[in-house]
Amino acid sequence: MIDMNCDLGEGFGRFSVGDDKAIMAFVTSVNIACGFHAGDPVVMRKTVDLAAESGVSVGAHPGYPDLQGFGRRAMNMDPEEVYAMVQYQIGSLTAFTTAKGIRLNHVKPHGALYNTAAQNPLIAKAIADAVHSLDPDLILYGLSGSELTRAGENAGLKVYHEVFADRSYEEDGTLSPRHLSGAVLTGAEALDQVRQIIQSGHVHTRLGACIPLKADTICVHGDHPSAIRLAAEVREILHTLSPYSNKDRRDSYENHSDPDH
Amino acid sequence: MIDMNCDLGEGFGRFSVGDDKAIMAFVTSVNIACGFHAGDPVVMRKTVDLAAESGVSVGAHPGYPDLQGFGRRAMNMDPEEVYAMVQYQIGSLTAFTTAKGIRLNHVKPHGALYNTAAQNPLIAKAIADAVHSLDPDLILYGLSGSELTRAGENAGLKVYHEVFADRSYEEDGTLSPRHLSGAVLTGAEALDQVRQIIQSGHVHTRLGACIPLKADTICVHGDHPSAIRLAAEVREILHTLSPYSNKDRRDSYENHSDPDH
Amino acid sequence: MIDMNCDLGEGFGRFSVGDDKAIMAFVTSVNIACGFHAGDPVVMRKTVDLAAESGVSVGAHPGYPDLQGFGRRAMNMDPEEVYAMVQYQIGSLTAFTTAKGIRLNHVKPHGALYNTAAQNPLIAKAIADAVHSLDPDLILYGLSGSELTRAGENAGLKVYHEVFADRSYEEDGTLSPRHLSGAVLTGAEALDQVRQIIQSGHVHTRLGACIPLKADTICVHGDHPSAIRLAAEVREILHTLSPYSNKDRRDSYENHSDPDH
Amino acid sequence: MIDMNCDLGEGFGRFSVGDDKAIMAFVTSVNIACGFHAGDPVVMRKTVDLAAESGVSVGAHPGYPDLQGFGRRAMNMDPEEVYAMVQYQIGSLTAFTTAKGIRLNHVKPHGALYNTAAQNPLIAKAIADAVHSLDPDLILYGLSGSELTRAGENAGLKVYHEVFADRSYEEDGTLSPRHLSGAVLTGAEALDQVRQIIQSGHVHTRLGACIPLKADTICVHGDHPSAIRLAAEVREILHTLSPYSNKDRRDSYENHSDPDH
Repeated sequence: MIDMNCDLGEGFGRFSVGDDKAIMAFVTSVNIACGFHAGDPVVMRKTVDLAAESGVSVGAHPGYPDLQGFGRRAMNMDPEEVYAMVQYQIGSLTAFTTAKGIRLNHVKPHGALYNTAAQNPLIAKAIADAVHSLDPDLILYGLSGSELTRAGENAGLKVYHEVFADRSYEEDGTLSPRHLSGAVLTGAEALDQVRQIIQSGHVHTRLGACIPLKADTICVHGDHPSAIRLAAEVREILHTLSPYSNKDRRDSYENHSDPDH
Repeated sequence: MIDMNCDLGEGFGRFSVGDDKAIMAFVTSVNIACGFHAGDPVVMRKTVDLAAESGVSVGAHPGYPDLQGFGRRAMNMDPEEVYAMVQYQIGSLTAFTTAKGIRLNHVKPHGALYNTAAQNPLIAKAIADAVHSLDPDLILYGLSGSELTRAGENAGLKVYHEVFADRSYEEDGTLSPRHLSGAVLTGAEALDQVRQIIQSGHVHTRLGACIPLKADTICVHGDHPSAIRLAAEVREILHTLSPYSNKDRRDSYENHSDPDH
Repeated sequence: MIDMNCDLGEGFGRFSVGDDKAIMAFVTSVNIACGFHAGDPVVMRKTVDLAAESGVSVGAHPGYPDLQGFGRRAMNMDPEEVYAMVQYQIGSLTAFTTAKGIRLNHVKPHGALYNTAAQNPLIAKAIADAVHSLDPDLILYGLSGSELTRAGENAGLKVYHEVFADRSYEEDGTLSPRHLSGAVLTGAEALDQVRQIIQSGHVHTRLGACIPLKADTICVHGDHPSAIRLAAEVREILHTLSPYSNKDRRDSYENHSDPDH
Repeated sequence: MIDMNCDLGEGFGRFSVGDDKAIMAFVTSVNIACGFHAGDPVVMRKTVDLAAESGVSVGAHPGYPDLQGFGRRAMNMDPEEVYAMVQYQIGSLTAFTTAKGIRLNHVKPHGALYNTAAQNPLIAKAIADAVHSLDPDLILYGLSGSELTRAGENAGLKVYHEVFADRSYEEDGTLSPRHLSGAVLTGAEALDQVRQIIQSGHVHTRLGACIPLKADTICVHGDHPSAIRLAAEVREILHTLSPYSNKDRRDSYENHSDPDH
């Protein structure tokens, strides 16, 4: 079964978000906020402990320093600033995994930092280098076939190409902007997309084309009861279907006109 | 020679404080701010790199989350909050020492957190436990003969009892509050106090009593040219004088009426 | 009917708290967070607009700069710092009342700032002076018979002595600390306390004594459905009962051994 | 003499920047940071008091919520977020002018917010509307001939077109990006540019073209001794030269091919 991941620990002080315990039953890895866009030290410690006890893999989820915007507003930071900021946030989460006696498994940038890194090679490289500087065995999660996965591969990191159940794709492999009609998938549509990606290594885009799409991990959400239901159904699909093999996938990419995807 | 330490990396973004390079020539260990009372990721990374290249030992300097107050305003935090906050800050600095390939040597709380921990055994224990949870080989710096050094010893940590050149002492071993006449020592007075502490293991209090005082490390400052001059002179004294031996010191403490000092 | 007030606008960015609309149906004045312990500019603007449309009086609810602790952790700030901080927060909220074309009615400190001001005359004076410096017609809300109401009266402000339905009192007129048995009142107990305060100008303390208690406003909460139910019942009582007259109250205080209450 | 303005109050807590007193001798208006990119309540209060006693006009200088980046990193905020954020910051500064008994004279966005507003009509409109919502008599300072001045004029505000002594211009009236050769002017070059703008209502661009440039206010700096020297010399020029008259200026603009300048 391929990896299923979910963002976790997104509370802050008095504020809480989502049902971390409920979603943990379905995923295999979690991305924990590190205090910049969400999460405070107490929340982080409890979330790491909860994840460790659930047996899921724990990753750091660094974001822009913007609690009001929940890390969803792009900030024009230099690569040097991003590099140190990502080191800082990974380090802070590592304190809690170390204290709990577990290993940090991966790093997945959050929100606007994830999106910027998918397209901007300098920011992507800053993140990949920051991850590598702390532990070259950390896995880097990034948008499948993006600048971020490329930068991770160039830095010598193990990379997980991430796909989404509930978002449609454009021809270039990017996620369709949310304001477009058909950008957000629900229910049967989302499950069909998951089946297609897993079985064929391809996805039908929003406008109907068929493009190859690597899938090492799939992102689900836990912030709504309906999201948790969808996660349970995705989990069921992943259990049942045998994924498209890596070898098949490789052939497919080589035959494809866009070698980047 | 006993250890000489200095707080470093106290800038933030555009703001800079003190001359980190100048003071680094005189000290043997530095305490680097971790982003809560001062320091941002870029400042932290550069300061760790500078310290590593100077060959001084690097410690984390966690403080209250209060940039406006520079960590000098006590906050009524629960021990559980302090525990996680100190883990977080040590972890964040460890990212930079790890990336630079050096070991984190010690932890010294900053400002109001240092003072609270010197007197409040629950906060002292939270800090000592946080340090121990991350690495039991880390050294804990605390006010000589205080609740913090006691908590560190109870937690099984190696502890450095810290003394001050430029502050007078009260009979109970605490620092004289700054607003009292004679609380702050300058020039010859400060140097005389250093000589006395090093040679005799005792100090004359502000009111003239003589109390024993353990000294594993001495704190100097780098935020003013005059502070750097004093540091140079303290360094000269420490080089020249042979310290009071541990054995003598132990006898002295045993004969003293207050076994805690 | 005496005033009923409630804290509002306590969300921040993505985080939301309580049902501001539901509680607004029962209260006559609201205290809106100003961005330091909760509230961001967008939340503040929407909350002011909602309150204006509901016809309730709008007040500023300044707190300590501590989002993680929701302003409930005391901070050791100088009176000078508190003075400027309260001016800042009142000014920020006034922007939204001005833009909406309504008047700011009152100021009520939040959480730990409220509690500190109830006991510390220097902090109380700093707050009263800050309020007066911006608009001498603003009403200052404070714990009934506390240092804060006293400071407000000394500064020449109109003061509202605040009482609580769901908290018991000690002999000196302070609220019973929450950890004591009997400190928190629910259901019939809370409603009985309201009736007693309104009808007699006195309250039975946690330990059974009877002390006078001025009541110009009563605080209710909107962060739980049960709190909103209690608010509805308190509202009903206030509508029905004729309050103890001011003249009677004055006589009572004059005859009472503690002239401060 | 046309207005000369300078940014002020850019310290924060322990950190201080520039010599506010020295530059105040030369300028006629000052822009005071409002706590988001710099400035805390204590700094703001002292700076307003200092400015009031110097007799200069006081303006609010709102910026992005980014202390680490000093408001110089663009953030992808919605117009609705910018609108409320600018209201908040103007309101906070108004507290201090009200307490001091002076009027707030103007608003000038800071750093990346200023630059974004110069080019993005939606952000420019959000700022102009925020200013107008608080006081339609406030003057809006913006880059001469930019989207911000246009939005201010459309909102019915009095607008000051701002010019720079020490920065060269491009053909479209924008400032030359700092990384280009010739973008930053010093000494005689800067003074020549000031003379040309004042006397002719035009400026020679970096590449040698001559474009019209409205000048209602000129920006100088106080953060370096050399900047203060330049300010003194600019002041001398403004005193001596009689400015190009408004009438002449209007004719010039009408004859010019680009009606926007």
